[in-house]
Amino acid sequence: MKSLVTGGAGFMGSHLADYLLKMGHQVIVLDDLSGGFTENVPSEAHFTEGTILDRDLIDSLCKEHNFDYIFHLAAYAAEGLSHFIKHFNYQNNLIGSVNLINAAVNYKVKRFIFTSSIAVYGVAQLPMTEEMVPSPEDSYGIAKFAVEMELRATAEMFGLDYVIFRPHNVYGERQNIGDKYRNVVGIFMNQILQGQPMTIFGDGEQSRAFSYIDDVVPVIARSAAMDEARNQIFNVGADKPYSVNQLAHQVADAMDVEPNLGYLPARNEVAHAFSDHSKVERVFNYSPEIDLEEGIRRVAAWIKQHGARQSKEFGNIEITENLPPSWT
Amino acid sequence: MKSLVTGGAGFMGSHLADYLLKMGHQVIVLDDLSGGFTENVPSEAHFTEGTILDRDLIDSLCKEHNFDYIFHLAAYAAEGLSHFIKHFNYQNNLIGSVNLINAAVNYKVKRFIFTSSIAVYGVAQLPMTEEMVPSPEDSYGIAKFAVEMELRATAEMFGLDYVIFRPHNVYGERQNIGDKYRNVVGIFMNQILQGQPMTIFGDGEQSRAFSYIDDVVPVIARSAAMDEARNQIFNVGADKPYSVNQLAHQVADAMDVEPNLGYLPARNEVAHAFSDHSKVERVFNYSPEIDLEEGIRRVAAWIKQHGARQSKEFGNIEITENLPPSWT
Repeated sequence: MKSLVTGGAGFMGSHLADYLLKMGHQVIVLDDLSGGFTENVPSEAHFTEGTILDRDLIDSLCKEHNFDYIFHLAAYAAEGLSHFIKHFNYQNNLIGSVNLINAAVNYKVKRFIFTSSIAVYGVAQLPMTEEMVPSPEDSYGIAKFAVEMELRATAEMFGLDYVIFRPHNVYGERQNIGDKYRNVVGIFMNQILQGQPMTIFGDGEQSRAFSYIDDVVPVIARSAAMDEARNQIFNVGADKPYSVNQLAHQVADAMDVEPNLGYLPARNEVAHAFSDHSKVERVFNYSPEIDLEEGIRRVAAWIKQHGARQSKEFGNIEITENLPPSWT
Repeated sequence: MKSLVTGGAGFMGSHLADYLLKMGHQVIVLDDLSGGFTENVPSEAHFTEGTILDRDLIDSLCKEHNFDYIFHLAAYAAEGLSHFIKHFNYQNNLIGSVNLINAAVNYKVKRFIFTSSIAVYGVAQLPMTEEMVPSPEDSYGIAKFAVEMELRATAEMFGLDYVIFRPHNVYGERQNIGDKYRNVVGIFMNQILQGQPMTIFGDGEQSRAFSYIDDVVPVIARSAAMDEARNQIFNVGADKPYSVNQLAHQVADAMDVEPNLGYLPARNEVAHAFSDHSKVERVFNYSPEIDLEEGIRRVAAWIKQHGARQSKEFGNIEITENLPPSWT
């Protein structure tokens, strides 16, 4: 089996590449290193540095490798920031995906596995189930939802099989803690390492179910060859929601510091988001194993080894109105 | 009042520009002439040739003119072809729209008026109402729906007011009859002028409510200043559906020829699509006045004056699998 993993130098993608290699796949990683690092790419994988916006590159990779599967994880998953970088968001998260879908049809890829997001639901009844009508509230969620619809239309028109996953708040080793716009666990740990307060938008009572990477990746990997997963959508991740305040205390604990919280004005975001996982549990005979305390402990151990990262500013903010001051 | 009309050298856009001028607006037309013609642009309008993908151009127009309203009509509205030109579709119909939305926020435009499409509904209960959950089935409809969602998110986040229209199968004078991928009325008339059979996909029993341009444009123009239209979605167009076979006979009649129908293999399309217009009738105190016979008669008179146009091939088909042979 030959698999393309886009975003394979990133956090989730590199874990997926590892897992696919263990399953015996040949793995080709495509990543533009905008959020990933070459050291994340497993040495047994073939690495190509490049962007999913480069259609010629995608075509030449497909021609050369004749992929069985495309695992499309490359994305800039900064949900809150996406309001302010709409063009960048749709280029990376929609146009890039469309380029890969075109290639998957033209090079007769067997299955296209796409990591969407819980962001497609928007504000919804809890827990969110796959049957609910998506109603995304930010540009990131809209881009993900558009790709989902595009996959459905492409399956209908051209017979391209797909599997869609909607993970949420995934954390773990190899997170890019130097991105201050996404991944609250990494942001908190990086702030602690630099002696700064953990910054929280609003009162910190917004809640999420934080999902440990090893509880998410195996299901994505296995879905490529499973009949029951064909043309299906799955929530995947942890069941139990925690408030951001609770998370901050867990992180402080694991990092052996007193919690130091810095509250910022609230931003426009969904207050509560967590998913129902009965479908993925049934089809994959799966349930998450690592609870938040254990998961955070593991990441803290990894991060203490690797140290803090300087956060880069996002260089091309398109709208500055209402941008949280900490993001300017 | 100063208004930008994108696509103002095209069919609907040029009629809208006319109407806005009559209402006393200053009108700036932006059009890349990919489907429009300079002779369509009213002489009292200021015309800039350029594309909505050129963000610098959009910014400089906004800076120079300080628009009150943006009427965004520029699009490549070839619904059936959109499956085969996904990248082109999303660039033109989504990214271009996002560029304009960004500029509307940054330059504090008062209202953004967007022509979406009946294509957002997909297969739905008939007649389609604005309250239905959209479920587009092709890349064109997905792009339009994504822009609708983006407008809602932008209104919420930045207070940009919008009005969304979902017109359907609009026909009339100045249609680009040289585009064989869209606008069945124009396609039929062009075929008749060239002595060719009118080509129909499938059995011709698919039905649409064909809408005469003068019944659509005034409502779009008036919506900019109407309180009740703020952040609303409106179907607009004719009520009565006709089959494509019935349309072909009407067109032949108006063109004074015997109907000569050429049936092609069916393509993947929504079988029946027509909309409920009680909302637009209530809010705008409006009802369509021109029936199909009269509308077709007017277009036939115009087209007989202007003659046939050579159809251009679309140069950059991205997927050729399942492409109708008449489109290759």
